Amino acid sequence: MDLVTFGEAMIRLSPRNFERLEQTTMLDVRIGGAELNVAVNAGRLGLETAWVSRLPNNPLGRMMRNKAREHGVDTSYIIWTDEDRIGLYFLELGASPRASSVMYDRANSAISKIQPGEVEWDGILEGVKAFHTTGITPALSDSAAEVTAEALEAARKAGCQITYDLNFRSRLWSREKARQVQTPFMEYVDILFTTEADTFRVFGIQRDKLAERFGFNIVVITLRDVISVWRNKWSAFAYSDGDFYEARTYDVEVVDRVGGGDSCTAGFLYRYLTTGDIASAIEYGVAFSALKHSLPGDFNWCTSEEVEAQLAGAGLRISR
Amino acid sequence: MDLVTFGEAMIRLSPRNFERLEQTTMLDVRIGGAELNVAVNAGRLGLETAWVSRLPNNPLGRMMRNKAREHGVDTSYIIWTDEDRIGLYFLELGASPRASSVMYDRANSAISKIQPGEVEWDGILEGVKAFHTTGITPALSDSAAEVTAEALEAARKAGCQITYDLNFRSRLWSREKARQVQTPFMEYVDILFTTEADTFRVFGIQRDKLAERFGFNIVVITLRDVISVWRNKWSAFAYSDGDFYEARTYDVEVVDRVGGGDSCTAGFLYRYLTTGDIASAIEYGVAFSALKHSLPGDFNWCTSEEVEAQLAGAGLRISR
Amino acid sequence: MDLVTFGEAMIRLSPRNFERLEQTTMLDVRIGGAELNVAVNAGRLGLETAWVSRLPNNPLGRMMRNKAREHGVDTSYIIWTDEDRIGLYFLELGASPRASSVMYDRANSAISKIQPGEVEWDGILEGVKAFHTTGITPALSDSAAEVTAEALEAARKAGCQITYDLNFRSRLWSREKARQVQTPFMEYVDILFTTEADTFRVFGIQRDKLAERFGFNIVVITLRDVISVWRNKWSAFAYSDGDFYEARTYDVEVVDRVGGGDSCTAGFLYRYLTTGDIASAIEYGVAFSALKHSLPGDFNWCTSEEVEAQLAGAGLRISR
Amino acid sequence: MDLVTFGEAMIRLSPRNFERLEQTTMLDVRIGGAELNVAVNAGRLGLETAWVSRLPNNPLGRMMRNKAREHGVDTSYIIWTDEDRIGLYFLELGASPRASSVMYDRANSAISKIQPGEVEWDGILEGVKAFHTTGITPALSDSAAEVTAEALEAARKAGCQITYDLNFRSRLWSREKARQVQTPFMEYVDILFTTEADTFRVFGIQRDKLAERFGFNIVVITLRDVISVWRNKWSAFAYSDGDFYEARTYDVEVVDRVGGGDSCTAGFLYRYLTTGDIASAIEYGVAFSALKHSLPGDFNWCTSEEVEAQLAGAGLRISR
Amino acid sequence: MDLVTFGEAMIRLSPRNFERLEQTTMLDVRIGGAELNVAVNAGRLGLETAWVSRLPNNPLGRMMRNKAREHGVDTSYIIWTDEDRIGLYFLELGASPRASSVMYDRANSAISKIQPGEVEWDGILEGVKAFHTTGITPALSDSAAEVTAEALEAARKAGCQITYDLNFRSRLWSREKARQVQTPFMEYVDILFTTEADTFRVFGIQRDKLAERFGFNIVVITLRDVISVWRNKWSAFAYSDGDFYEARTYDVEVVDRVGGGDSCTAGFLYRYLTTGDIASAIEYGVAFSALKHSLPGDFNWCTSEEVEAQLAGAGLRISR
Amino acid sequence: MDLVTFGEAMIRLSPRNFERLEQTTMLDVRIGGAELNVAVNAGRLGLETAWVSRLPNNPLGRMMRNKAREHGVDTSYIIWTDEDRIGLYFLELGASPRASSVMYDRANSAISKIQPGEVEWDGILEGVKAFHTTGITPALSDSAAEVTAEALEAARKAGCQITYDLNFRSRLWSREKARQVQTPFMEYVDILFTTEADTFRVFGIQRDKLAERFGFNIVVITLRDVISVWRNKWSAFAYSDGDFYEARTYDVEVVDRVGGGDSCTAGFLYRYLTTGDIASAIEYGVAFSALKHSLPGDFNWCTSEEVEAQLAGAGLRISR
Repeated sequence: MDLVTFGEAMIRLSPRNFERLEQTTMLDVRIGGAELNVAVNAGRLGLETAWVSRLPNNPLGRMMRNKAREHGVDTSYIIWTDEDRIGLYFLELGASPRASSVMYDRANSAISKIQPGEVEWDGILEGVKAFHTTGITPALSDSAAEVTAEALEAARKAGCQITYDLNFRSRLWSREKARQVQTPFMEYVDILFTTEADTFRVFGIQRDKLAERFGFNIVVITLRDVISVWRNKWSAFAYSDGDFYEARTYDVEVVDRVGGGDSCTAGFLYRYLTTGDIASAIEYGVAFSALKHSLPGDFNWCTSEEVEAQLAGAGLRISR
Repeated sequence: MDLVTFGEAMIRLSPRNFERLEQTTMLDVRIGGAELNVAVNAGRLGLETAWVSRLPNNPLGRMMRNKAREHGVDTSYIIWTDEDRIGLYFLELGASPRASSVMYDRANSAISKIQPGEVEWDGILEGVKAFHTTGITPALSDSAAEVTAEALEAARKAGCQITYDLNFRSRLWSREKARQVQTPFMEYVDILFTTEADTFRVFGIQRDKLAERFGFNIVVITLRDVISVWRNKWSAFAYSDGDFYEARTYDVEVVDRVGGGDSCTAGFLYRYLTTGDIASAIEYGVAFSALKHSLPGDFNWCTSEEVEAQLAGAGLRISR
Repeated sequence: MDLVTFGEAMIRLSPRNFERLEQTTMLDVRIGGAELNVAVNAGRLGLETAWVSRLPNNPLGRMMRNKAREHGVDTSYIIWTDEDRIGLYFLELGASPRASSVMYDRANSAISKIQPGEVEWDGILEGVKAFHTTGITPALSDSAAEVTAEALEAARKAGCQITYDLNFRSRLWSREKARQVQTPFMEYVDILFTTEADTFRVFGIQRDKLAERFGFNIVVITLRDVISVWRNKWSAFAYSDGDFYEARTYDVEVVDRVGGGDSCTAGFLYRYLTTGDIASAIEYGVAFSALKHSLPGDFNWCTSEEVEAQLAGAGLRISR
Repeated sequence: MDLVTFGEAMIRLSPRNFERLEQTTMLDVRIGGAELNVAVNAGRLGLETAWVSRLPNNPLGRMMRNKAREHGVDTSYIIWTDEDRIGLYFLELGASPRASSVMYDRANSAISKIQPGEVEWDGILEGVKAFHTTGITPALSDSAAEVTAEALEAARKAGCQITYDLNFRSRLWSREKARQVQTPFMEYVDILFTTEADTFRVFGIQRDKLAERFGFNIVVITLRDVISVWRNKWSAFAYSDGDFYEARTYDVEVVDRVGGGDSCTAGFLYRYLTTGDIASAIEYGVAFSALKHSLPGDFNWCTSEEVEAQLAGAGLRISR
Repeated sequence: MDLVTFGEAMIRLSPRNFERLEQTTMLDVRIGGAELNVAVNAGRLGLETAWVSRLPNNPLGRMMRNKAREHGVDTSYIIWTDEDRIGLYFLELGASPRASSVMYDRANSAISKIQPGEVEWDGILEGVKAFHTTGITPALSDSAAEVTAEALEAARKAGCQITYDLNFRSRLWSREKARQVQTPFMEYVDILFTTEADTFRVFGIQRDKLAERFGFNIVVITLRDVISVWRNKWSAFAYSDGDFYEARTYDVEVVDRVGGGDSCTAGFLYRYLTTGDIASAIEYGVAFSALKHSLPGDFNWCTSEEVEAQLAGAGLRISR
Repeated sequence: MDLVTFGEAMIRLSPRNFERLEQTTMLDVRIGGAELNVAVNAGRLGLETAWVSRLPNNPLGRMMRNKAREHGVDTSYIIWTDEDRIGLYFLELGASPRASSVMYDRANSAISKIQPGEVEWDGILEGVKAFHTTGITPALSDSAAEVTAEALEAARKAGCQITYDLNFRSRLWSREKARQVQTPFMEYVDILFTTEADTFRVFGIQRDKLAERFGFNIVVITLRDVISVWRNKWSAFAYSDGDFYEARTYDVEVVDRVGGGDSCTAGFLYRYLTTGDIASAIEYGVAFSALKHSLPGDFNWCTSEEVEAQLAGAGLRISR
């Protein structure tokens, strides 16, 4: 197993044609969640991945498991319950000056009720190259934060590379609590993925102080320049051990930006875990995630061949 | 105001084309809930109606309010909250031998958190002809049961006719608790709507013992003969003061049976409150609710003219 | 040219999934009209057909022309106008006990404004085997009735077989006016298509008195037994010169019955004009029109091979 | 009542995915009309509004009433008729260089047949703060122009602020007739909403001569800079009593620009009627109407909170 | 591994709403193929299954692999090619008297080009309980027939139970060739699934002579009584070693009958392989496959719990 | 007859909403093919056109014929076969940086199996003004190349203007084979349509050497500047006899660019064949094809009136 991720995924319900939720009569059903997105996308690129979560044993829980499996993610570690619900999120796609927006209905989800000791981390993480989670998981509940701590400890013990995305969600917890809970986690982390804004909100520091403060091996920062809702510039850079790696900037026409950062993480990890080359990994992650913006859904249905074509300078003309 | 109802309504999400929830990629969005259905349907027929509930102040809460208003229901008594969620239900339409099925996701809904004293029942019910609620409302939570008791007391004080549908929901409470909570409510009730099965499940008695036991003025029992999932026979009868009123039986082709009983209640109340004639009311209620089965959604988009046409023997040939 | 038809066709707008018009958010767009249906269907079976009408020169008028052309109907005789509108009809599909229903919005359509002298009937009908119109055309307006009279006169002069479907529409004219206007037309008619109900409504006589009264060569009567909205029995018979020809009765599952009669007319005419055999023509017309009920839209997308398979006893098992 | 509007609303039928009307097989059904749009939008923001019109008593007329009611508009003054039709309009959404376009099918609509004396203006307008109509209403028919004159007279008598949008429609009347009919109306008007182009087309003068010529209290001019069909710059300014109020200009990505001006009117009136502050009202109106361009339909489903967020500098990043 | 199946699966394209293929503007995309259906369905019930096939390395090939994986089927034995195409089939859903029909476009599919030696049967089948294929696989091409022979030989060697569905497809080969090719295969087969009609078409014998002639351990015969296209009676029976096992007959309302037989096979195998009880297995297979008819697609999205509920007498009333 | 074209058209299947093919559950069905596109579009503008091809006698073949006929194209020369399949192509619409892409499934199509002698070119081309084909036709198969040669010979004999679009498709043949096969064809060609890129790929020369090298009367070169996937600049120029004709450049918002070049060809031919004026024809072709980009499908549903409006400076404001 190359990569194990841990966290919540939700049923994603979104109106078509830029409708507001209040006006819609139909919702597209997809799924998504930061850690599942990384597992799926890295799996599509070629890593062997697994996703750990807790799901209700009902049609929506099964749909979640099915769709993870559809992309080859190992779902055998999922904990099933007959009690709780699955989280939902409602996504409205915007147009300038109206930003896209997400409304969550995730309280009391099965994963938020997870308890320490429920996951057999040692067995799961044995021989695994990397473990990934994000700042959303400990924000779900105190017990989810405890299980996150268990996971990090087990991952260190198992010798996994530990990768973490800050992913601050102000609807789930305060900046203060996010800092308090996650500061101890940071000492486990080898590779941190984040944005400038989240760095500041959670730790109150500039992004370039991160490695210095926490001793990360690698820090990856994604950069989004929002020209308009439909048009962004997108890039990322990494720094490690005093070196700085900057990727090409892409002009992206935004069909759906949700999951953009997760695609960058997945692309970076795929290339980094298979080559160990940070410069190549950051270019790969950015190209892969730039492509993500062009299609609907949290997942990135592009292929490794398509990423390579971007890196080789694929143009915008119709391919046939 | 002719009729005030009190209860929960939910966002209703259903796949098209007989898809299972687990396989679907799209959900139709409608709304429904027993007491709202009665308010909407009676309002469409011509009564002045209001619906009392508690809703979150978000797009889905507003959608609910809007769609009640769309049918002329007075929504000014709704209590708004910034805290809670709206309930959801997922509906799968079946085909023999697979019955249609409903999966609820209604825990912790705004209405279930309603507190005694929150609704100004006296002001709302003053001068109102009838008050209606169902056995779903007190099943939502203990506090909702307390508010139901408040409402019944206020309705009696205001001189409303009190009408009640047993509507037993085994996912919400046990038969025992349903009996224990509702037995005291029954003494307030003038008109009871129910089925043979619910009577037995809640009170452990036969339907013809209801009036005797609880002293209802009128009991209305709906009758469904499920030939197949797509083909039912549908009727109802009433008894009052020793008299028995039996309506015509309709062969219905079932597009969507959800809300069938609520349509019968609404039709009965409309005709009974405007004419006082039970025989005519039961025929009207059955005709109106037979029509309901022919269209999607909890609400009954048929008109009073269409009900009259049924009563006058409208045939099945295309009308043009 | 084998067959020229004359009349109105409308844009047909219908909700999906048995929705009522009042509740819908989406309409399927198709087209239809009795005389166009006959031209299209007979054309699909193999006759060379043309349709004469009057259309506005706008996207909806062009859509109408295009879709007639799609089935090979000669549309070169259509009269175009920059002034008027195209007629619309809204179709609601029902389920027992709610019949399907049609709401017309056809007043002031381009064809209703047609004027005597506007169509070059002599040129159009020269060498044509059969001319067909229905009782809808003269009902549209007085001038349309005058043009119908012109057409009948020209058709007789050109030696066409004249075929006519009574198609009584009570929203367009009264029984009295229908009788008064059409009685003189009947002396031109060689083959009459009708139902028992229309015969009585228009002429106040039984169907078996038709030939006797008006001297038709052939009378074709369609028979629909409406078991339920979704299930009909469908057949027809013909009589001619004292002989009686009865077709097989089909159990039809009704997807869309609009245009059923027109399919029977088209199938009968196709077979009769190519073989002269009434017995075979009535079987062919009924088989073809039974198939029509199984698909959406006024037109009959079935093929001659599929009709032959029905006549040869095709079963109901999946064909692969 | 804060605001009463008077005019026509139509069923709006539009193809999806930039299809041309001629090629489409499906139409989205919405509703719209300048004066209803203002009533709905101002109602959504918080004003108490009513809409006066004349509708046919059929499913489409009821749909119109329902959807006005859905947004809390008082529809009790609508005049119902069993005779006439409802107007329709077909909307094609464009892409450069093809502009979006509207095809009307509104002739002989119920509202165009309205007669003087049919509306009880005095009762309706008593105690109302503002009355709004547009140049479309008198263009519908001579009798509609007469009823408009009645309304203006009654509104002055009732002490309403009278607001008017020139909204010139060349398909309905000539520039000459528009000038001739509306010039006398202008003396009633307190607040005029218009564009530079309409001012010139109707009155043959520059926009800055309007107040001088007609003595309006306030003139509001919307400004649209059409960079491309999908990208506009949008703003407005007001002048009153020699002062000039200029709003921020928004870059808008255009999902649907129909109803943009009506949203500006509604936003302006909401803020102006509640605060009396022109500077704030023009900023509010422009922000609200800029948001309108981002969603499908004539109505503006954005909320007052979202307008405030724009005024406070909401960015374009996803909100979650 | 419990079960390995081998064969072709195709992209399945079907119009909605009973449209004919010739008239449609939209196709639902699903996948299906007899052997994949069995692997998916048995996997859903709880067996560990794998599917062996040959697919093109393009989006449609990947979709096929994904959707097999979605249901937990092991897809690691699929052979990928850059050369060939994937087969398609077009499905029209019918209504009496028009049967549903399938049009194949499967010539030159990747699987039809499979070559002997390409599959490592020995490794794949080691330790596997059962191997399943059908008469479609050898019909695809001579080389596919050779690979089928290889597989049967390897399966016997590996000690698998060998199960086979005759599935005669007249568009793929003649009765004579089907007999000639498959007769030698029959000696490998432990459990034969078929229908009376296929038995006769392929072997020219009655179904009750099958075991006698070929020495099968178990023969399972499905029984379909086609009351109408939308209403079938469905059952099956098994015989083994002189004993006869007859299952309950279900009245099914047919949403989609494609894959019905494969569901019966999967249900039978699941229960038989886990219990060895033929009587229980035939009841289970019939209940599971009766449920299949109620939902769209070749796959059976029902659960083991739902099958058990059927066996325990689940009714047709809505479940909530 | 003004124009006869010869070539393949395919069923075009495309996901909605920028979905990838691998993720879609629904495909829009349209048709297209370079030579049919030219016939349809020129026919819509007013030329009398016919399309020669070879089609399978099945629902998809009939759909193709129907949709050509829908636009008035003469389809009577199509050769029908009971044997072969129709070609398909799958279109994914992109967003920067992901280009749109086409995946063909056209091998073994009916037209690729066409044989010399199968088309009666002399009869078809007699009296025809122009014959058009493209470099796709001879690329389909050797026999298709032979039939192309027959057609060119017959067209010269019949005195047609011969027009040709290079349309190089690298998936169908190599540059070398394209050059070798087409070089002899070029001596027949009067008007060549191409791009700079295709000129170089096929003949290895610059576009301005084309006339010199092959002696064409007119060369038309389309120019696409791909600012982004959604935004192109589009123009074309012609040169003839030493003169150079340059059209206006359009900013186009790209809904669907497939068929853009074919629209330019059709517009140019329409204007050139009716006026003989190259300068006007190139402006017309570019305006018509700029409009094409704004709507879905290979065909250009814009009208001659709309082209004239563009040429006269139609703006981007909504037309109503």
